[in-house]
Amino acid sequence: MNKAREFDQSVVAELKTLLGDRVSTSAAVREHHGKDESYFPYALPDVVVFLKTTEEVRDVVNICRSHRVPMIPYGVGTSLEGHILAVQGGVCIDLSQMNQVLAVHEEDLDAVVQAGVTRKQLNEHIRHTGLFFPIDPGADATLGGMTATRASGTNAVRYGTMRENVMSLKVVLADGRIIQTSRRAKKSAAGYDLTRLFVGSEGTLGIITEVTVKLHPVQAAMSAAVCSFAAIDGAAKTVIQTLQAGIPIARSELLCALTMKALNAHNKTTHREQPTLLLEFHGTEASVVEQAQLVQEIAKDNGGMDFQWATRPEERTRLWEARHNAYFACLQLKAGSRAVSTDVCVPISRLAECVTATAKDLAQSSLPVPLFGHVGDGNFHLVILVDPASKVEMEEAKSINSRLVTRALAMEGTCTGEHGIGMGKMDSMRKELGDDAIDVMRDLKRVFDPENLMNPGKVVPL
Amino acid sequence: MNKAREFDQSVVAELKTLLGDRVSTSAAVREHHGKDESYFPYALPDVVVFLKTTEEVRDVVNICRSHRVPMIPYGVGTSLEGHILAVQGGVCIDLSQMNQVLAVHEEDLDAVVQAGVTRKQLNEHIRHTGLFFPIDPGADATLGGMTATRASGTNAVRYGTMRENVMSLKVVLADGRIIQTSRRAKKSAAGYDLTRLFVGSEGTLGIITEVTVKLHPVQAAMSAAVCSFAAIDGAAKTVIQTLQAGIPIARSELLCALTMKALNAHNKTTHREQPTLLLEFHGTEASVVEQAQLVQEIAKDNGGMDFQWATRPEERTRLWEARHNAYFACLQLKAGSRAVSTDVCVPISRLAECVTATAKDLAQSSLPVPLFGHVGDGNFHLVILVDPASKVEMEEAKSINSRLVTRALAMEGTCTGEHGIGMGKMDSMRKELGDDAIDVMRDLKRVFDPENLMNPGKVVPL
Repeated sequence: MNKAREFDQSVVAELKTLLGDRVSTSAAVREHHGKDESYFPYALPDVVVFLKTTEEVRDVVNICRSHRVPMIPYGVGTSLEGHILAVQGGVCIDLSQMNQVLAVHEEDLDAVVQAGVTRKQLNEHIRHTGLFFPIDPGADATLGGMTATRASGTNAVRYGTMRENVMSLKVVLADGRIIQTSRRAKKSAAGYDLTRLFVGSEGTLGIITEVTVKLHPVQAAMSAAVCSFAAIDGAAKTVIQTLQAGIPIARSELLCALTMKALNAHNKTTHREQPTLLLEFHGTEASVVEQAQLVQEIAKDNGGMDFQWATRPEERTRLWEARHNAYFACLQLKAGSRAVSTDVCVPISRLAECVTATAKDLAQSSLPVPLFGHVGDGNFHLVILVDPASKVEMEEAKSINSRLVTRALAMEGTCTGEHGIGMGKMDSMRKELGDDAIDVMRDLKRVFDPENLMNPGKVVPL
Repeated sequence: MNKAREFDQSVVAELKTLLGDRVSTSAAVREHHGKDESYFPYALPDVVVFLKTTEEVRDVVNICRSHRVPMIPYGVGTSLEGHILAVQGGVCIDLSQMNQVLAVHEEDLDAVVQAGVTRKQLNEHIRHTGLFFPIDPGADATLGGMTATRASGTNAVRYGTMRENVMSLKVVLADGRIIQTSRRAKKSAAGYDLTRLFVGSEGTLGIITEVTVKLHPVQAAMSAAVCSFAAIDGAAKTVIQTLQAGIPIARSELLCALTMKALNAHNKTTHREQPTLLLEFHGTEASVVEQAQLVQEIAKDNGGMDFQWATRPEERTRLWEARHNAYFACLQLKAGSRAVSTDVCVPISRLAECVTATAKDLAQSSLPVPLFGHVGDGNFHLVILVDPASKVEMEEAKSINSRLVTRALAMEGTCTGEHGIGMGKMDSMRKELGDDAIDVMRDLKRVFDPENLMNPGKVVPL
């Protein structure tokens, strides 16, 4: 299925006629666009185009279709499941130059952006408005890419994921039609939810060129806190009880002892190397104090130690930078390693059990495997550190992940909370949802892409 | 298209073999199931079945399909756009006896219910848990029906609509397959969003038999407030500024002067008969006081008068009962009338303008037309009171609605914020989303229901 197809070189000439020097077949450019941050081997597109408008996307789609050439949309290449690998060759459609913020509607709390705008760029652009875009997967990904992978991250416990924060999309379909999936009203009951159908479709149903996203008011007060626990169980229980009490925490991240060790080494800090909860509170001055006090009590009841506050912006920033660096800090634990990332998400009532059973499983492994995640959503990651040249280690990593997915599914969880299916989780998704649901997805794929040209080999194989 | 098809009477015999006395062809039962709360003429099913399990639904679907007979799912008949009218005859599948709450997961803040459970029944069932289900469209609708119509209502400004509150669905497809659309994890990036595809599909893609919904903690403190305004503009601005300030109001309802008059007459109250804002605040004791004080200041800046508090539960209940009775109170303004309800939703920055232009338009009309709605979402309703026997009045009502929809679409709004498409808004939806998007919806319909047997004549005609 994933053998590169015969590539019709006349496509390049047609693209050059359309786009001039915004077409590249150089090895360096193709290599840059043939990898993401996953452990999958590189898979290079035959040609890369750099587009600026929806109409150009349509024209390129029409050229590709007429030559039956695969097309792979590309943002900044930060995906984690091989989403943008050109496993059947074809045209990589780089959208990073579609980076215009088209409109900011302050009164309506929304913005319309081209797909190549990154989340940090948008937040910089709207800094003066008192509004912000909360979804934060760590990487400075594009809004188009974040939509396509249904991205999430540290703020999701309060602000939701891309599913809740995308209002409308402009999409180029495989047959060259351009649709707008919804109007800009805050809610609508008009027909089938085309917006949500494209959120998480990973480039396999159409190419997203514009995104209308919700913005949120920057709260009057924000504060963060760190708290250590003797065991991971206490940290998980703290978060469950906090959510049940209706306390609107904005972030709640769990880091295991090994992750804390990696962070201390990487950042030259002296945090306790024990399971640690990072929390953030948003609200009015009074409510933030109230929230944090309530959580501090809950943490104490669950064995929390050294509850520390960070109310000044620079302290908060330092804390969250440390969290965002966790992935890279962990890579330093083993020289020359790459990471196989896992991404299960379980109902939070099962989180402590799932984490504990996983820790027990990892104790058998020779590989270093830090664990961290978005505990308020029941979502956590293992960063399995492997020597990519070692077949034995790769097999061990896959086997750890496979057991983890089986464990999560047995607890009514999902194989992927936020990274997506891409190339690595098709079998897991079938186990998760069953043959009939996957067959329905395949029928949907066929409706939108009967010739299997839109990012083929991802999500559902045809 | 909507002429009743030839009905194969042998279907009734097969249904009776399967279901015994839970099959009815009596005129009274058919008539009860052939109307909703809309102004559309009755359209009776040929037979009504009362089902108890997903497997029974599957068996009935198989019988209907083998005889090419339409099937229309039915909850309690409170839809407003003719959703459950059997315009091509067929089998009405009454799900109201599928009323088991299957599981309540207190720690995970979710519940799994059969489709016939109503929202009040669920809230009664979980009363002891400190949790509640917030979506409140006024009527005590079933969760299945609310899912199928993407229902919303007064709490949506804070808690979202059914789109945000449904986690997973069990669905019987037209070919008899049963799928579960998602696992019970709080978030997932596993493949196409089948859950959202069925939310709002109005029985046209499959029959929803089980719903997993999010629950929310009952907040420690709740208070409500009423405030009058000289003009509707000030009320709208109050809400916009409140949302921009990030104040998490739980409800914000606008009622026009005529609606207040109807409520006073119906409830024997003495509220000012002026544009009125009803507000509700949920939070901790301190935050509710803080929220309400901030909103009171904003209201004052916008010409708000007589800001009144209701902190005791019975006061709050009385206030919201009045709001929920608005529809019926308005019907009393004109003896023997029925209501043509409109449902536009616009970006809130355009709300004051849309409401003002609409009021100007209504001044030309001979019909009484109260206006109220969910101003925090930009969604408002006209209740156009007509004598259903008068062709002239019906034409006038349709013409008012048509101009309103045109006005809302010109403001980037939608023809339906929460009532759905049903039979009445197919043309409006085409204007709203364009031919290509509607064609995509029709392609989706064909995938799920190639023989056009699932609630035919609704959403997208085949």
